[in-house]
Amino acid sequence: MTQLEQARKNIVTEAMRHVAEFEGVEPEFIREQIAAGKLVIPANKIHLQTTLKPKGIGRAITTKINANIGASPLASDDAGELRKLNMALKYGADAVMDLSTGGDVDRCRCNLIKNSPIPMGTVPLYEMIINKPIEELNYDDILQTCRKQAEQGVDFFTMHAGELKEHLPLTQKRLAGIISRGGSLLAKWMIHHNKQNPFYDVFDDLCDIMREYDVSFSLGDGLRPGCLADATDEAQIAELRTIGELTQRAWDKGCQVIVEGPGHVPFNQIEKNMKMQQEICQGAPFYVLGPLVTDVAPGYDHITSAIGGTAAAFYGASFLCYVTPREHLGLPDEDDVRQGVIACRIAAHAADVALGIGNSRQWDDKLSKARADLDWDRHLQLAMDPETARKMRDQTQLPQTDHCTMCGKDWCSVRINKSIRETAGK
Amino acid sequence: MTQLEQARKNIVTEAMRHVAEFEGVEPEFIREQIAAGKLVIPANKIHLQTTLKPKGIGRAITTKINANIGASPLASDDAGELRKLNMALKYGADAVMDLSTGGDVDRCRCNLIKNSPIPMGTVPLYEMIINKPIEELNYDDILQTCRKQAEQGVDFFTMHAGELKEHLPLTQKRLAGIISRGGSLLAKWMIHHNKQNPFYDVFDDLCDIMREYDVSFSLGDGLRPGCLADATDEAQIAELRTIGELTQRAWDKGCQVIVEGPGHVPFNQIEKNMKMQQEICQGAPFYVLGPLVTDVAPGYDHITSAIGGTAAAFYGASFLCYVTPREHLGLPDEDDVRQGVIACRIAAHAADVALGIGNSRQWDDKLSKARADLDWDRHLQLAMDPETARKMRDQTQLPQTDHCTMCGKDWCSVRINKSIRETAGK
Repeated sequence: MTQLEQARKNIVTEAMRHVAEFEGVEPEFIREQIAAGKLVIPANKIHLQTTLKPKGIGRAITTKINANIGASPLASDDAGELRKLNMALKYGADAVMDLSTGGDVDRCRCNLIKNSPIPMGTVPLYEMIINKPIEELNYDDILQTCRKQAEQGVDFFTMHAGELKEHLPLTQKRLAGIISRGGSLLAKWMIHHNKQNPFYDVFDDLCDIMREYDVSFSLGDGLRPGCLADATDEAQIAELRTIGELTQRAWDKGCQVIVEGPGHVPFNQIEKNMKMQQEICQGAPFYVLGPLVTDVAPGYDHITSAIGGTAAAFYGASFLCYVTPREHLGLPDEDDVRQGVIACRIAAHAADVALGIGNSRQWDDKLSKARADLDWDRHLQLAMDPETARKMRDQTQLPQTDHCTMCGKDWCSVRINKSIRETAGK
Repeated sequence: MTQLEQARKNIVTEAMRHVAEFEGVEPEFIREQIAAGKLVIPANKIHLQTTLKPKGIGRAITTKINANIGASPLASDDAGELRKLNMALKYGADAVMDLSTGGDVDRCRCNLIKNSPIPMGTVPLYEMIINKPIEELNYDDILQTCRKQAEQGVDFFTMHAGELKEHLPLTQKRLAGIISRGGSLLAKWMIHHNKQNPFYDVFDDLCDIMREYDVSFSLGDGLRPGCLADATDEAQIAELRTIGELTQRAWDKGCQVIVEGPGHVPFNQIEKNMKMQQEICQGAPFYVLGPLVTDVAPGYDHITSAIGGTAAAFYGASFLCYVTPREHLGLPDEDDVRQGVIACRIAAHAADVALGIGNSRQWDDKLSKARADLDWDRHLQLAMDPETARKMRDQTQLPQTDHCTMCGKDWCSVRINKSIRETAGK
């Protein structure tokens, strides 16, 4: 039985207890949320038996973040991907996706799963068409590849099953068109064969495989907007409605479901987008890529997406996919992974604090207390990235001082404030 | 006459015409906004006669950003400050503040003004207490220093005149206390002398100097929250109410007024903070430092503040002060200035797009069109920071290719989408 099926039968699993303990809530609460489809524990039975420490994803608990890694045909190196995984783990990613499209993808994937204590996702379509044009993709490829990856222990699959043939004309008016890789490949297949999306056609069979291993669906938005001008358009909404139907069908089959969302969205449209998904998909966890609040900052899209991600997580998303500074420009390297993870964690944490989830703000209060006390060691230790913070301070500090070059000793407001308080205390 | 006084007399000045042209609106509209106190053109008559190209600050036009530069006692170098000014100009700062507290501050300031086509602000208090304890500050120091700096051409002065003696007990319950440099210094003075804030006491005389040169007030929030726990507390609001009164008093004297705001504010409190200031200060432009939406990310506070800045500019602010990655850790260097300016511009632009101000989104649409067309040259040229974007692409690209390493040629969704469109077009 999947976590969902067990939750429905009032069974509190080991994974649910683990998640409850991490989040500081009752296991029964986690069970209820899973049974309602509002919380997902992406935990393939195979991965769960080995290295996985399960994580929960849902509105009722802390916001989670995902780091995309993976080789491309132009840059593939198993050891390099493992280093990226470790970088993502070091800086606090809650999940990773292996999006490899080059190299020995099976070896790379198995190696990552073996070394990942956090849930791992893939886009199985990618493997299906390595060394083969998309036009040759058939139903068997889909089912066989998904079964193989499920057996390998992948915890969640992105499936662009909601992108229908009848949605494609709606993208004609777009500025950027279809910018999801999976989405554009499937569009090409549908146009070539003049047939419905094959993932949609084999959806019930996919559910059977997913159920068997408890692989969670991550229903991909192949028609997500790739620029502000295309945000919240007819194509995006039409696909979301189909995803809403598929969410119910997967639930009926006992499968866990996450729903993927945009993309590039102006700041003023984020709340509306989040609420629409929560309504259409009946509270299934929303997993967003960004959203980027402007298109004009390639090289800094970890920032544009941290802005959108904070608003998204505040208004309805529960899972944020990181975006690295190299988005739109090249495959991220290890340092890009660090920057992407940190920016995304900032967004997730800022939203958790704003929502008052659990004791999220305790961390802020502890660090601020250390800062106000001029306790630099503790201040830097508590930083989200202690190494970087310490390096920046060390670059400009005088040795053995307890102040920094920002103001110097006499001008330090923290020091002045401390002396005022000490005087007031007497 | 100041810009405000002229606006009230229905005079459209050269500066108003310049601002109107830049914003793509009618000069008469700018005049109306200035007369209502809702728009400020910080333009000292001396600076305006020489190098200044005036900028407008207000809700009705595009959001502006400020970069803080200046030497500290531990790091002062006139040439270095000039390089920081040029870095700020290169990446699109709309204003700079010279916050120097070390070195030859007069020489540094005059040098910066001479080289700055954008408005320049200072916190005159800093100069008043160089080589002298704050306790020795007297009314004459305040008036003389302000007059001297006005004569030098400074366009706006931060004055923490709204922080009253009776507000100080309200900060006792705070986690971080008083973290504004000016605010903590004046608190120390008030406690030592057991007298009212001297800037408050000489406010009318200050207005006379400001009016003479048309230096704009930037009414500083000495009690701004320095951590999430202290946000939107009694002390902050009490000071804001006094600032609201001073805004009216300065207007009555014919002076232009900007109001300064927080600071560290949880994401969910930003809208409320912005609306409160707009109401209490009758629409006077709001100039915020951040706000930072979490305290836990020293080393990345350009990101925490870009998140808060976007929300702030969307809900009520019209002027964002940048925060650099080195905030809380040391004095920013040139590269920190670049990163701070870019992050702040992203926030300002994202808010302008969300608000639909002018033709802000045209930039996004142009870049996205170039991206969809695989027109890399134009794509990178249009980026907010073309150099950084090009460098990132070049680091991983194959020579002479029109694709990037992110997906490689065959997997490029933009390329697939282009071929779909070409097919559909036939």
